[in-house]
Formats: sequence, C-alpha cells, structure tokens
Amino acid sequence: MILVVTLNPALDVTHEVDQVNWAGVNRPHRVHVRPGGKGVNVARTLRALGAEVTLAGLVGGGVGRELVTGLDGSGISTALTWVCGETRRTFAVVDTGRGDTAVFNEPGPPVSVGEYREFFVTYERALASCAAVVLSGSLPPGVPADAYADLIAAAAQASVPAILDASGAALAHGVAAGPALVKPNLAELGEVSDQSMERAGQPDADAVVTAAGRLLAAGARAAVVSLGWHGLLAITPDGNWRASQAGPVAGNPTGAGDAVVAALAHGLVRRQDWPERLRHAAALGAATVAASAAGEFGAEDYRRQLAEVQVTGLPGPDVWREDG
Amino acid sequence: MILVVTLNPALDVTHEVDQVNWAGVNRPHRVHVRPGGKGVNVARTLRALGAEVTLAGLVGGGVGRELVTGLDGSGISTALTWVCGETRRTFAVVDTGRGDTAVFNEPGPPVSVGEYREFFVTYERALASCAAVVLSGSLPPGVPADAYADLIAAAAQASVPAILDASGAALAHGVAAGPALVKPNLAELGEVSDQSMERAGQPDADAVVTAAGRLLAAGARAAVVSLGWHGLLAITPDGNWRASQAGPVAGNPTGAGDAVVAALAHGLVRRQDWPERLRHAAALGAATVAASAAGEFGAEDYRRQLAEVQVTGLPGPDVWREDG
Repeated sequence: MILVVTLNPALDVTHEVDQVNWAGVNRPHRVHVRPGGKGVNVARTLRALGAEVTLAGLVGGGVGRELVTGLDGSGISTALTWVCGETRRTFAVVDTGRGDTAVFNEPGPPVSVGEYREFFVTYERALASCAAVVLSGSLPPGVPADAYADLIAAAAQASVPAILDASGAALAHGVAAGPALVKPNLAELGEVSDQSMERAGQPDADAVVTAAGRLLAAGARAAVVSLGWHGLLAITPDGNWRASQAGPVAGNPTGAGDAVVAALAHGLVRRQDWPERLRHAAALGAATVAASAAGEFGAEDYRRQLAEVQVTGLPGPDVWREDG
Repeated sequence: MILVVTLNPALDVTHEVDQVNWAGVNRPHRVHVRPGGKGVNVARTLRALGAEVTLAGLVGGGVGRELVTGLDGSGISTALTWVCGETRRTFAVVDTGRGDTAVFNEPGPPVSVGEYREFFVTYERALASCAAVVLSGSLPPGVPADAYADLIAAAAQASVPAILDASGAALAHGVAAGPALVKPNLAELGEVSDQSMERAGQPDADAVVTAAGRLLAAGARAAVVSLGWHGLLAITPDGNWRASQAGPVAGNPTGAGDAVVAALAHGLVRRQDWPERLRHAAALGAATVAASAAGEFGAEDYRRQLAEVQVTGLPGPDVWREDG
C-alpha cells in the first residue's frame, strides 16, 4: 500500500463559460465538481495505475463532507482526520470562447495543534503497513512549515521511503529530513534556490542540475525536476538522466506534475530502475496533459507516450557533488 | 407566520480578489459563504424585521446540507424537501481593485415529479398556519413553468394572500392565478410586456404604469415595480403611488429587490396602508444597497431612509383600467 498525505485538500469546482462577462452575470454551460488538491490527484492516479492507496490528511466542514463523498467509489482508502475548520474550495472558470482559465484558490482551514497531533497518530499507524509515503501539496494555516520534515523523520523511523512534492519553506525544511525523493518543478526549484532555471525561455539544464544537486547536498536522496513538455531531469546517487517526450502536447497541464509523482512512487515500490521509472513518469505526465479533465489520463495516450519517451544518461552523474 | 417558498435556493460563495488575473491563479483575500437565492434573502430580511418565518422549498446533496447548516441560528424555521439532485452554488468574484463583480450561477438540480409533489404536500400543510406566502425566484429544471400558478391557487383555497417575485414564464403564468401582489423590476416588467420600460436612460413612468396595469388586468391584485434608486411604483385597486428615495445610494444592489419584497409582505400582514407599506419598502431597499453584504441592512440606514422617502399619489389611479 502507498500512503498519500494531503494536509490541505480542496473541493475543485470548475465552471465552463462561453465568453465570460467579468463584470456581469454568467451561466456556466458545464459544472464539474470533484475532490482535488495535489495529494488527492496523486492518490487518484496511483489508483488508476492499479496501486493500493490510503489517503491521510485533514478535512473539515460541509466542503470536507462533499470531498469525502466525492471519493466514494474511487477505490481510495481513507484515514482522514476531521478538523473544526472548513476544507477549502478551488474555483476555476474556463472561458471556452477565449481559451483562458482563471483559478481562485481559497485559503485552507486553520488547524489547531491538537488536530495536527491527532492526524500524526493516524499517520504513524498507517506508516506501519505501507511501502512508501507521498507528501504532497501546501500546508494549511496552523500547520508548522517544518511539518513535512517531521513526517519524513517518522517515515524514516518506520523504514518507509518518503516522496516529497512541496514548495517554498515546506520544501526547504522537508529536504533536510532526508526524503527518498523530491519532485520540484522549474518554478519551485528556482524559488528554493533563489535563481532562475530558464535561459532564453528554455529550461537551463546546467542551472537545474546544479540547483537539484544542492537539494541532494541538503539531505534529499534524489531529485526529479519536472520541466513541463521538456520532460524530466533526475539527479540521483546512481546517476543523472533526462527523460524527453516527443514534443509539446495540447491539453490541460493541471495535475501533470501530480501524475509524475504518482508514477515515481509506483516505480519506487515496484523497484523499477531509474530509467524505467522516469520513462513511465514522463509518459504519464504527458498523457495527463492530453486528457481534458485535470489529473486524468487515457490508457491509449499513456501507451503511445511510453513508446515515444527517450531516457538518456547525463554526462557527469556527480556534477551535483562539485557544488554540494 | 409568513411562509417563504424557495424552489431553487443557492449557496452563495463570494471571493474578494484585488486585481483579478482572469487567465491565471488568484488567491482571494476574503471568502464569504452563505445561504442565498431570492427566497432565502426574503426570509432573512423578514427575520431581521422581526417576523416569524418558515422557509419551504427544495434542497439536495452536500451543497444543500451546507445551505441548511448555514441557516442554523438564523431564526428561520425550515420545512424543506430533500431532492436527489444537488443544490446549486453561485460564485461571485469581486475585484476590489477595479470595482467589478462577476457572478457565475450554476443551474439548479433536476427535480422529479415525485419530489415536487412531496414539496407540495409540505407547502399545503404550512399554508394552514401562515398569514401570507412569498413565492420568490427561479424554478429549477423539472418544475413546470406554471408551478407558481399552482401554488397561488392553493394559497387562495386556504385564503392566504400570495406575493410573487418571479420573471419570464413563471411570472406570466403566476399572474393569471390571481396573486395579491407581484413585484417585477424594470427589466422583468419589460420582458413580460415585451416593451422597453426606459426612456433616455430613466424609468418611463407611463410605460411602467401601462405595463403594470396589464398585469392587474391579467389577474394580479396589485403590482409594485422596483425602479432601482428611482424607488417604487405601485398600481393597486386602491390607487397608484410612487415612493421616491432622496437619491442614489452607493453600495451593493444585490438583494435590494428581495428586501422590498420582504417589507411589502411584512406591511401586508401588519395591515399597513399602501403609502406606509411603500415607504417602508423603498427605505429598506435603499438601506440594503448601503450595506456591503448582499441582502443585509443597517438599522440606522433604514431609519434614515424612512425619514427621507417621499410617497406621492399618482394622478389617475385608474390609468391601468383604460388599458386593461
């Protein structure tokens, strides 16, 4: 079983409107509602890959009840902790005429020390029976910035490898606790290393390798950086690789990073070697972009991308050590 | 007790954002959530006026549960009928930088014949103990366009005066069943009479009197037309009046029409004469605009407006009969 932690899940509400009137009344022609947040997306993708998944985290209020109801029938087991506050919504307005999407992310509910402690007890219990844990997404107010470090340390005690997908202070603190893998995207890596990861509008591979190397020097055992349609770049003790897809994929990039995390977790528990793990992760990310609903993918797209993704070793697997 | 019917209530979610990015990610600095829809607004205002109120209507799903939870502590009694579908949300994005508001109204849940019948039984039972009934707002899919006519006929059988605030086909059908009062605004009156109600950007009093007179000829016992900050125009068998406020009020006009309906219902059950009823209704409408939250009002604003509103008889109380 893979344990997925979602401390700040959301109910994702999407309105499709043809030619939005931003100063008037609109009647969406389609409304989609489903459980969301990065952890929930990872759990959903892991289920689609056939993995046993347990979702742990914090939910509250009427929106939390809607979220839990929305997981019914998903095949995802839940070990959620109820809090007094209300789970947040995200609201996306898709202008189907202009092709723009506006997203409105509510803040998460305030979480008390006692509520976090109650979650932690549930988390430790779930660790006992899992092969890997994925820690994914933002922290709600009241949860300390080093919570992921705390959870990674508990996983290490239970000999469970932890995969961290976070940003900012949560990423910086988490790295120091020695996760098996971190998966920043370019923007997150740039933010945490305080440096641009692009040159002339393209990912700057040298800067990425250097910055990712620093994450390993700081404690992470491996780093996979997602480069959008440019694929993935992996810095590991076993070597460095780049996984490249054939080209850009038209569609919806929301949730593609979560699909990459799910594939990497799945590859980890299945003991795939790094090139194979990365091939699956890049292919699943691209297939997720191709699907219109955020975070879903078509089996046919996935198979096609698997055949097209190229994984190549990078020269100087120890580049990061020079900077570490 | 005043019975308020809300067949298509909503959970109103409002996001306040400074300088919205309509093609990117936004983090609202304030989120408000509360039960809404015209009927709920009328019930809330009636409670604020001190009336005993029972809310009847259709709710469903997780959003329906949130709506009912949101009524806790409001003092509004509920006699709601649960349906299989999900109560709708409205999303309002208030751009606090630009001063624009975009509203996104989800469609209501589909309602089955059996669900409507179950509501009708509850409605008839509630009629037995009420002094007036207010029928307010849109009809969800599956409820026939002549439902308000049906409900007004049942009220007449129980000798309960009915106040109708609807638009389009629901208004046209409802009028024929002989409600005690209809309360269209200019746009609704224009739509139902297929004629513009404005001239040179101002309400065209002659056109309004003529069109409202036709509603009386079609069956309504009285009509009060809300003219925005130009006040109210009443066409009744006892005479015609215009209630004028001192001038435009800065604020949020959402819910002002519902406040007018609440004041008119309150005046009806308190047997106020028409000029007094209209004075209260116009003052409460203006006070509701002045309050920042939709559909609320400050007692001080209400008192000040009451002192300022002028009610004048219109010449030719029988104008409408010439056209009827």
